[in-house]
Amino acid sequence: MSFETAPTKTIEVNGTSFAYREAGEKSGVPVIFLHHLTAVLDDWDPRVVDGFAAKHHVIAFDNRGVGASGGATPATVEEMARDAVAFIRALGLSKVDLLGFSLGGFVAQAIVQEQPDLVRKLIIAGSGPAGGEGISNMGAVLQDALAKAGAAGKHPKNFLFFSQTGNGQAAANAFLARLNERKNDRDAAISNATIGAQLTAIHAWGQAEPSKLSAIHHPVLVVNGDDDVMAPTINSFELARLLPNAQLSIFPDAGHGGIFQYHDVFVQQALDFLR
Amino acid sequence: MSFETAPTKTIEVNGTSFAYREAGEKSGVPVIFLHHLTAVLDDWDPRVVDGFAAKHHVIAFDNRGVGASGGATPATVEEMARDAVAFIRALGLSKVDLLGFSLGGFVAQAIVQEQPDLVRKLIIAGSGPAGGEGISNMGAVLQDALAKAGAAGKHPKNFLFFSQTGNGQAAANAFLARLNERKNDRDAAISNATIGAQLTAIHAWGQAEPSKLSAIHHPVLVVNGDDDVMAPTINSFELARLLPNAQLSIFPDAGHGGIFQYHDVFVQQALDFLR
Repeated sequence: MSFETAPTKTIEVNGTSFAYREAGEKSGVPVIFLHHLTAVLDDWDPRVVDGFAAKHHVIAFDNRGVGASGGATPATVEEMARDAVAFIRALGLSKVDLLGFSLGGFVAQAIVQEQPDLVRKLIIAGSGPAGGEGISNMGAVLQDALAKAGAAGKHPKNFLFFSQTGNGQAAANAFLARLNERKNDRDAAISNATIGAQLTAIHAWGQAEPSKLSAIHHPVLVVNGDDDVMAPTINSFELARLLPNAQLSIFPDAGHGGIFQYHDVFVQQALDFLR
Repeated sequence: MSFETAPTKTIEVNGTSFAYREAGEKSGVPVIFLHHLTAVLDDWDPRVVDGFAAKHHVIAFDNRGVGASGGATPATVEEMARDAVAFIRALGLSKVDLLGFSLGGFVAQAIVQEQPDLVRKLIIAGSGPAGGEGISNMGAVLQDALAKAGAAGKHPKNFLFFSQTGNGQAAANAFLARLNERKNDRDAAISNATIGAQLTAIHAWGQAEPSKLSAIHHPVLVVNGDDDVMAPTINSFELARLLPNAQLSIFPDAGHGGIFQYHDVFVQQALDFLR
């Protein structure tokens, strides 16, 4: 079943209903997709989900307070990680791979530090370590992009996720079109309260003391575009430098959404990495 | 035909005999392998050559003065590049991909700057830009490793190409064993005069003004281990940053010989990149 037609399911997690969708055969270690700031289930590139799903059981979900999930979004990455772990456990899973994109990459780090045995391998895209350079500016960058997008009649992701070159903007428009492929059973919109809590959590992560990444011995694939304006690319270098078992992949003429721009290459790398 | 049993051939290049070996089917754009300091044909990892040869026509050669090739090795990267171009043209080729490892990565940059139309795509491994940090120390690092290797009864590449961890040294020994798989028709040894000329060329490259990498619009895959003591890994970041169309890949717990340690992953990345 493709992600486009995957039904939105719900599961009770500590008394709160969490929304999720699945793709791929239910065998082997599932890959849990951890979403970005402002994202709901419809913000995952169907090419990336279906690319992973060719070989893996993929589960994307709305964390507490996001999209169709109930409850109020907490204002720290660590609480988001605890909610994600509770969701994973509620599904009856005891070993997962994680793909964390942007805020989801912070959550992935917090999950593996809190529950190392729950995780087999991690992919961290468009993200960075606690205290990483420029990360606490993400709210200001978002605000600036919202203003620019309004003035230009474009989507904020044209500015936030892709380089401003011809190639970058063509990739942005192709990505945005893919996000609209799903016509039925679309997710609920994100609330302003949730965005506010996420921005608070991101700001705190950007201001936090560096965490002990040297203690994470899991295999990690760190990936980004070479010109990320939201989580500056230097943070991907830093993650790869500080994590003892990290492989780094950086795409040219690409931004925060490099894994979507280079979805073919990224999926191939990820499938090789997850083997 | 596998690289292990590929016959050593010769071709006249401007009156000098150049030695080379081929693998893979003779169709499509060939991949020319550009060798490292001290290397002869037997120093290429057969897994990497055969991995490329599954999809591409691969040609490895001894540049002027190296191994079984005649003539005297020149003392500049630019002259080495002109010799390499003359060899490629002598084979009747007008479009090639390049894999340049270490010194070969410098030569690859000089080739594409001199003859941009000759080259389709480049892979630059364990290398760096002109004037790159620490590159002019390569001679001193080599000397130090020769002393350590002599004292420890090990191969210098144990120190030069791999990290000093258990994993790194196991990979070093496996790599060295692979280099000994070929029993017949092995190449001539490198001469001290050639090593001297190569070190002079490397030192000059390390001291040179930065070249205009922004003018190279070819697709480039830059790859290295995360702890390269010969061409420090920061130089791979710099190459990827300065080249407009470069993809970067960095392997964990690996050194200068990261592409040999991770030959499976590297070959898959390279085949995807060369598609």
